Amino acid sequence: MVPQSSDNALDAPHIRDAHEADLPRIVELLAQLSLDAPREWPDEPLPASYLAAFEEIVADRRQRLLVVEAQGRIVGSAALIIVPNLSRQGRPYAIIENIVIDTDARGVGHGEALVRYAIEEARKAGCYKLSLTSNKRRPDAHRFYERLGFQATHEGYRVEF
Amino acid sequence: MVPQSSDNALDAPHIRDAHEADLPRIVELLAQLSLDAPREWPDEPLPASYLAAFEEIVADRRQRLLVVEAQGRIVGSAALIIVPNLSRQGRPYAIIENIVIDTDARGVGHGEALVRYAIEEARKAGCYKLSLTSNKRRPDAHRFYERLGFQATHEGYRVEF
Repeated sequence: MVPQSSDNALDAPHIRDAHEADLPRIVELLAQLSLDAPREWPDEPLPASYLAAFEEIVADRRQRLLVVEAQGRIVGSAALIIVPNLSRQGRPYAIIENIVIDTDARGVGHGEALVRYAIEEARKAGCYKLSLTSNKRRPDAHRFYERLGFQATHEGYRVEF
Repeated sequence: MVPQSSDNALDAPHIRDAHEADLPRIVELLAQLSLDAPREWPDEPLPASYLAAFEEIVADRRQRLLVVEAQGRIVGSAALIIVPNLSRQGRPYAIIENIVIDTDARGVGHGEALVRYAIEEARKAGCYKLSLTSNKRRPDAHRFYERLGFQATHEGYRVEF
């Protein structure tokens, strides 16, 4: 067995909680999620509302803002939320939201690593499910989730304000 | 204008946060949500896991366990969650889950009152959306949500544990 050099270890993609310094890059990635008109404002200086939201998320022990880092660069992100819940005899559930992998870094397993990490965290937290919603206009994403074991048992309804 | 007597006022259906004493009745209602094998244990004494979950929910300033009370009886319930969020320039979103109206009390507007209340709370909290998922085997529920302005833009995916 050849020991990994520290350089190699640093180069391996890994998943961690986001730091405040990651915010501009995460917002840049979130901007890729829009199918229609732009919804984010990724130009620096970032609107203060992003930092305020980040601080709320970090202070919330039930939510984690995850990033995938590869070769020193953030290539993906997602938010994982564990929700205390009364049904199913009081078992919590988990939600994963805002899943994004940089368009330049797709097809090499980063998304799969991220989602599998979330599945494992949800399981460890005793959740009865990990759920997500995916726009019906994203057939590629649907194939991806189905390959990872997700089933589209539900309709995803929303009212927007 | 005829003033309402206090009896009438008490009889009017209203929406409030659940109390611990409501738990057995809420669990009875949640048991109605199962489309397949029973998932709840509504017989008293209730399993301690329900009370533990209730206490977690009450302690969570982002979640409210709502009940609809009519003529002194709880006829419906739902959980409303406000989630801090980075996307949409840091705007939170809301989720409504475990929506149930007693099978004996349907068709008289309790569900509509409950969901409209949640929409209003989500709006007041500055959310960009209120979302919910509904099993694809519930076409009646889908018509109900669509009538209230919800759109099924997304697929609702889950892995269960």
